[in-house]
Amino acid sequence: MEYHDQLGLSRQAFDELSEHLQVDSYEGREYRHLPGYRKSVEKGTVLVCGTVVRGFPKVPRCLVLDEGIPQHFDAAVAVEEKLNGYNVRVAKIDGEVLGFTRSGIVCPFTTHKVRSMLPVESFFEAHPEIMLCGEMIGPENPYTPADCYTVDSIAFRAFDIRKQASGKPFGVETRREICTEWEIPQTKLFGIYEPPEAVESTPEIIRELDAGRREGIVMQTVDGGQQLKYTTSAANQGDLAFAFEFPFDYGRDFSFRRLIREGFQSVEFDESEARQRERAHGLGESLLLPMTDSIERIQDGERIGQQHTVRAEPRVVDRLLEHFREQGLTIDIEGDRRVDGERVLTFTKQIQRTNDKVQTYLDGTIVRE
Amino acid sequence: MEYHDQLGLSRQAFDELSEHLQVDSYEGREYRHLPGYRKSVEKGTVLVCGTVVRGFPKVPRCLVLDEGIPQHFDAAVAVEEKLNGYNVRVAKIDGEVLGFTRSGIVCPFTTHKVRSMLPVESFFEAHPEIMLCGEMIGPENPYTPADCYTVDSIAFRAFDIRKQASGKPFGVETRREICTEWEIPQTKLFGIYEPPEAVESTPEIIRELDAGRREGIVMQTVDGGQQLKYTTSAANQGDLAFAFEFPFDYGRDFSFRRLIREGFQSVEFDESEARQRERAHGLGESLLLPMTDSIERIQDGERIGQQHTVRAEPRVVDRLLEHFREQGLTIDIEGDRRVDGERVLTFTKQIQRTNDKVQTYLDGTIVRE
Repeated sequence: MEYHDQLGLSRQAFDELSEHLQVDSYEGREYRHLPGYRKSVEKGTVLVCGTVVRGFPKVPRCLVLDEGIPQHFDAAVAVEEKLNGYNVRVAKIDGEVLGFTRSGIVCPFTTHKVRSMLPVESFFEAHPEIMLCGEMIGPENPYTPADCYTVDSIAFRAFDIRKQASGKPFGVETRREICTEWEIPQTKLFGIYEPPEAVESTPEIIRELDAGRREGIVMQTVDGGQQLKYTTSAANQGDLAFAFEFPFDYGRDFSFRRLIREGFQSVEFDESEARQRERAHGLGESLLLPMTDSIERIQDGERIGQQHTVRAEPRVVDRLLEHFREQGLTIDIEGDRRVDGERVLTFTKQIQRTNDKVQTYLDGTIVRE
Repeated sequence: MEYHDQLGLSRQAFDELSEHLQVDSYEGREYRHLPGYRKSVEKGTVLVCGTVVRGFPKVPRCLVLDEGIPQHFDAAVAVEEKLNGYNVRVAKIDGEVLGFTRSGIVCPFTTHKVRSMLPVESFFEAHPEIMLCGEMIGPENPYTPADCYTVDSIAFRAFDIRKQASGKPFGVETRREICTEWEIPQTKLFGIYEPPEAVESTPEIIRELDAGRREGIVMQTVDGGQQLKYTTSAANQGDLAFAFEFPFDYGRDFSFRRLIREGFQSVEFDESEARQRERAHGLGESLLLPMTDSIERIQDGERIGQQHTVRAEPRVVDRLLEHFREQGLTIDIEGDRRVDGERVLTFTKQIQRTNDKVQTYLDGTIVRE
């Protein structure tokens, strides 16, 4: 079956899409992936060895649970935790299990981790032609580290099982049963609710997650066909703090959207004036303090960047560094030690614009706006 | 002298510029003005009755006084207060004194006010072919009201005198003497300093202005040839509060720039952790509280807009309302009374996007970002 058939596209539509595909390779195996959003096919879709690995669909969001849930769902919804890590799809391609990041790149580190942490051989033998979708979470993480989970280094949590080529999801209950059967750790299920119950239950779930500095929820029909997400204030403010640590490297739309979410949540949660001020203060701190910290560090002659720590067999860490170099990233090694035969590497991904712009303004450069 | 000669442009450059000019009229007199920024000529430049009224130049800004002042100036600088109102140029055209807003529109209200508040006849007789530039400030103001000045209704403060056609400024001292002579109220002069003294003195001036919730300073060489501005935290946060009252009507760049200014100021002023948190809290409040207030009002069925009050002879207020309608603005009258023969009108300028977008999200509409 040709790619365009697997993707459900006409030959012409596929040819148009092809112009946007990026060619990459992993261990000598060439593949093409779609790094950005297009109308016809999900971002992150991969074409490799004659097969398609569909991109994970973008989950839409509501700003108000009360109206958003009944607007979006007219049958029972499963409410599961949305985790703050990086999205990975695990699939078996031509006899080899690979881990794909959101944008469709085969990550050697992720590939190694999923192979060693999950029962991939027996799982894919029983379920060929599917992809296991989940979040890689924890503090030792080369993309999106987070400290809010009881994870020492890095862990996988399944949140979807889909047909590899079509992206069609398994139902929530089937997926959870399969994961239980194979002892694949999965994201928490809070419950399955009729829409009015979901409206009633979700604010309390969000408050609890917020108290634990966790990210939010994904709601979906039990067949997995329709999804909707909603995030905590901790996630919104955490993202803002991250963006304002590197203010000139992050889109203004990125920050604006998160500010807006805070406004709608504050109104929907019917906050007292005191609680609202508390939220405002948290918001202000998440914007100002990371920014002043970065400005001060640059003023002191430091070059700032995104720091990460990873822990794995030495050859896997080597391969990750090589992979980053192939991606065009510049990496500075901050710490490098061995623990129980594993290499624990702390490194910084260099960023450019914030360092340059802040330095320019500190030097007295004039702003013509 | 033809327009292109007065503007110092080739005929071809003038023809190119002409495509961007907007035609308008005032009391039957047609004029053209440049509503946006172009490379060749200042925004707000007006062509009327064969003469040019130059746009007021955009004043560049520094984010750090310490380095910005010596970078920008190598001779004495006059430090004057930057006022928070609306920029107006007063010029006598073909025997008639007119008030132009920043974008080059003849405003009937402003024209009336400057004619009645300032000794325009004798002034322009003594100084033909110049324009008097200043800020209209105070709470009863159809564009940018502010409560921080000891002004009951509206007042004019001169901050520049320039050649009408070339825009060439008078020196600061000459300008201040002329204003004193004609009893034209003018913006406060803090002093004339050598650059190192200015670096030392301006932070304290900014702190004082900030305590009074005032806007900032304009620094310039004594010949008026080079200008530089710097604003208080009160101004930055006030602008953010204004923008987040109408979050979907204001540019994201507008807000981002003001957040960045807060970061640099906090670092330059070497704030204690407590003071920095205080600034962060003010920042958060200026973003969140106006936004939640607007969301709540829209939720309650209100349509929000920008409220203004003006006070003038009834025919002048009528003319202002007509002017707004000609500009395509929709005005709702909120209050209308007579006081001592004057009409005191409170009105709201309707805004569209924030009302529509907020209502959409309150209705549960999904966000696909």
